[in-house]
Amino acid sequence: MRTIKVFAPATVANVVCGFDVLGFAVNAPGDEVVMRFTGKPGVTISKITGDNGRLPMNADKNTVSASVQHYLKHINRTDVGVDIELHKKMPIGSGLGSSSASTVAGLFAINELMDRPLTAMEMVPFAMKGEELACGFGHADNVAPAMLGGFVLIRSYEPLDIIKLPTPNLYCAIVFPDVDVPTRDARQMIRKNVLLKDAVVQWGNVAGLVTGLFMNDIDLIGRSMHDVLVEPTRSILIPDFYKMREMAMELGAVSFGISGSGPSVFAFTRDEQTATNITTKIQQHLTGLHIASQTYVSAVNQEGPKVIG
Amino acid sequence: MRTIKVFAPATVANVVCGFDVLGFAVNAPGDEVVMRFTGKPGVTISKITGDNGRLPMNADKNTVSASVQHYLKHINRTDVGVDIELHKKMPIGSGLGSSSASTVAGLFAINELMDRPLTAMEMVPFAMKGEELACGFGHADNVAPAMLGGFVLIRSYEPLDIIKLPTPNLYCAIVFPDVDVPTRDARQMIRKNVLLKDAVVQWGNVAGLVTGLFMNDIDLIGRSMHDVLVEPTRSILIPDFYKMREMAMELGAVSFGISGSGPSVFAFTRDEQTATNITTKIQQHLTGLHIASQTYVSAVNQEGPKVIG
Repeated sequence: MRTIKVFAPATVANVVCGFDVLGFAVNAPGDEVVMRFTGKPGVTISKITGDNGRLPMNADKNTVSASVQHYLKHINRTDVGVDIELHKKMPIGSGLGSSSASTVAGLFAINELMDRPLTAMEMVPFAMKGEELACGFGHADNVAPAMLGGFVLIRSYEPLDIIKLPTPNLYCAIVFPDVDVPTRDARQMIRKNVLLKDAVVQWGNVAGLVTGLFMNDIDLIGRSMHDVLVEPTRSILIPDFYKMREMAMELGAVSFGISGSGPSVFAFTRDEQTATNITTKIQQHLTGLHIASQTYVSAVNQEGPKVIG
Repeated sequence: MRTIKVFAPATVANVVCGFDVLGFAVNAPGDEVVMRFTGKPGVTISKITGDNGRLPMNADKNTVSASVQHYLKHINRTDVGVDIELHKKMPIGSGLGSSSASTVAGLFAINELMDRPLTAMEMVPFAMKGEELACGFGHADNVAPAMLGGFVLIRSYEPLDIIKLPTPNLYCAIVFPDVDVPTRDARQMIRKNVLLKDAVVQWGNVAGLVTGLFMNDIDLIGRSMHDVLVEPTRSILIPDFYKMREMAMELGAVSFGISGSGPSVFAFTRDEQTATNITTKIQQHLTGLHIASQTYVSAVNQEGPKVIG
């Protein structure tokens, strides 16, 4: 029976100024799914590694298998049977689109096994169903960049309108301080009402960031990445957020901010060495505060998921 | 003594979804300034036509001459003397950047007469001073596109960060219903607080519009041009706004909305004939309501001000 192994990337949602509408993928970290035909109908999960037992093995409840079930139903192939091994290679609850990476890897794997009946864009809604199972609402700002690669704009949810943006030639330094920030709580903290004048600042910056991506203007990308609405609240849950930002900017970061709902933070840099310097320095700082952390350095991802075996 | 005649274009600020950050220029209407050296220091205004006597002849109070004074002071040439004739070729208080067109024409004229010591971008702040005189705050969303031509993003006011965007190959149908909507009142009506979820919809659309301009994707431009925050309030002051929109969209408009703070409305179209059909039909409708109107059809302006004599 045919077996396939797929990698799907971690993602940074919001991208500082683009709350709920922007996201991008990174080359590391990411999750891996091994999928094989079983010869009998139905989707099973035989193994999950790297999750410390936190994820459900029940195929109806796990976001990876549930999404694959939706997918098979959609293409009218519920006669097909596959087994899934999920290898978590990134922390859960880190704000790096952990569940999205797993779900997207699973969907990409089944679509490959079925000889690609759907495009990547067509698979995004199935991955959003997985998000709904994982966090209560079918956000697209992690699954869309994980599936499509690069930088993605979710212009609208109703109707769903997702547009791939140019991918900048930048490196991304990520630090995950190992403190617990559940996505639901992080969302509930955010004010429901905002000042129109602050919203104007925000959409000026969103427009500036998109312009910077199209013009490949790294300075413009950097000076557009400010968040006057959400970051002031979310940063409260992140240890020494403003100190970490100061460190990153002093070391030459293009920009710095919260990844998704946190607690992970990220910096864009022009080169790999600067990204490494930033993760090293911030990790040392967190260690001094007795906070464990994980760090990742990679280029902004261009291609989305890929077959690795 | 050398004499120059300059045209500067009318402009559409906000562009539906981009309140206070986006604007574009049109080829018609626009204002004209005739400027000549006088041989003695100081700026004078000898003639204003087309304003029905509404604009000040006092050189310190007229936005055109006051901006030219600021300009000459900035380049340390207060020894220079010029006289200005202003020919208003568009209605005042129409929401089409009437004062901006005049001010920009004056600044462009003096810069030409002085052999271009400043770039167009460098002159924008002087035009903003004129706006401050005209309406109490130095907005840039009319003066910047009038000066630079095409589509313009004002990413930020502090510091001022203006970026020229790609100009779409579109026509613009403009209808000015002759009802009075002072800019100050139109601004005061707008709610100071908005829902974050509505703001998210808005900046998704702003990002979509900017993306559409860069990708020259007219459908994306059209579906991004929705305003859930400001239009619902401002449209109250505009007679039969939603009926006019319905007419424009039925005739094939790409999009329809309020120009600046109104009462002028505009539609983007793919061709000139559709734009003409729209202005004709809307004008007929307004005439039936006993509301006088003026209409304009032209391409989106590419070049900004120009010497015409």
